[in-house]
Amino acid sequence: MQGKFQSVDLAKSYLLLNHGPVVLVSSAFHGRRNVMAASWVMPLDFDPPKVLAVIDGRCFTRELIEASGEFALNLPFRRIADKVLAAGSMSGRDGDKFAHAGLAAFPASRIGAPLVRDCAAWLECKVISEAHNQKRYDLFVAEVVAAWADPAVFSDGRWHFPDAARRTIHYQAGGTFFETGRAFECADA
Amino acid sequence: MQGKFQSVDLAKSYLLLNHGPVVLVSSAFHGRRNVMAASWVMPLDFDPPKVLAVIDGRCFTRELIEASGEFALNLPFRRIADKVLAAGSMSGRDGDKFAHAGLAAFPASRIGAPLVRDCAAWLECKVISEAHNQKRYDLFVAEVVAAWADPAVFSDGRWHFPDAARRTIHYQAGGTFFETGRAFECADA
Repeated sequence: MQGKFQSVDLAKSYLLLNHGPVVLVSSAFHGRRNVMAASWVMPLDFDPPKVLAVIDGRCFTRELIEASGEFALNLPFRRIADKVLAAGSMSGRDGDKFAHAGLAAFPASRIGAPLVRDCAAWLECKVISEAHNQKRYDLFVAEVVAAWADPAVFSDGRWHFPDAARRTIHYQAGGTFFETGRAFECADA
Repeated sequence: MQGKFQSVDLAKSYLLLNHGPVVLVSSAFHGRRNVMAASWVMPLDFDPPKVLAVIDGRCFTRELIEASGEFALNLPFRRIADKVLAAGSMSGRDGDKFAHAGLAAFPASRIGAPLVRDCAAWLECKVISEAHNQKRYDLFVAEVVAAWADPAVFSDGRWHFPDAARRTIHYQAGGTFFETGRAFECADA
């Protein structure tokens, strides 16, 4: 992990998800891997940092996460939005979805799940077993064990998107996304 | 509920939160009411629609939600971002936070919590009791029992923001928000 990947202080890793971007959830177990798009992911706690992710019970990613106890959250850049959508259009059971969607992977630092290239930031997560939440709500609680960001877009705990191609994105529906828009500051009233 | 408030089909109410906007959580019990800003809120299920919300154990809102079993999620317009920030700068225990922050309220249809004016959409929620999640993670599961949107910005299951003042917003940190940015469509690959 070097060059475009800068470590993010774990206690500040919630800042990567605070604004509600869409993520790619990547997972792997025993030589099989997968990637899926997800909007229903958010921070749960600051320190140690935890996240919540809703992972449908029928999908291949769920199988890999339950077997490995790990997953990564990858925040795709605007410029790969078409690949994010492609990652939602097939099952990883039918072939390698990275290849299908044209997504490149590289190794994580603390978990076996691969990370996805052309992303703004990455959170490596270990599942905290919560059988009731998983079974009843398809809901996973996980601890963030490592976090990374491209310093061109995130540093010192703040986003600073340099151009449209390297903005994070938010999913609406039917193939439509929003870019993360203009930043603005409010004086505390 | 008329004029600027149009009912949103419950099965489509998740579309109001899918893009990860900041919300105002409003609550009331026995003549006391409160409002707080929250970023850690997201959909959990489609039908019946459910949401997740992280509500800190020490805050006044938590007390009102646990007593009433209800809350509303209000999606503030860009033009009241300063009031959203003000709603995060004091405790409702120290006085009426609606008055302090300059937020106007109006009655909900199915719950006792008030709704907040100058918002893009509203979700009226009833808590599904989950003692373990509430106690261990400050996490609330709730069912959406009514949903509303301003038809100038959301109709037929899609956002269509007419101007900057009436966009939804996303919280970053330190008084800094992002506007919901440009919409774009991807062809399914």
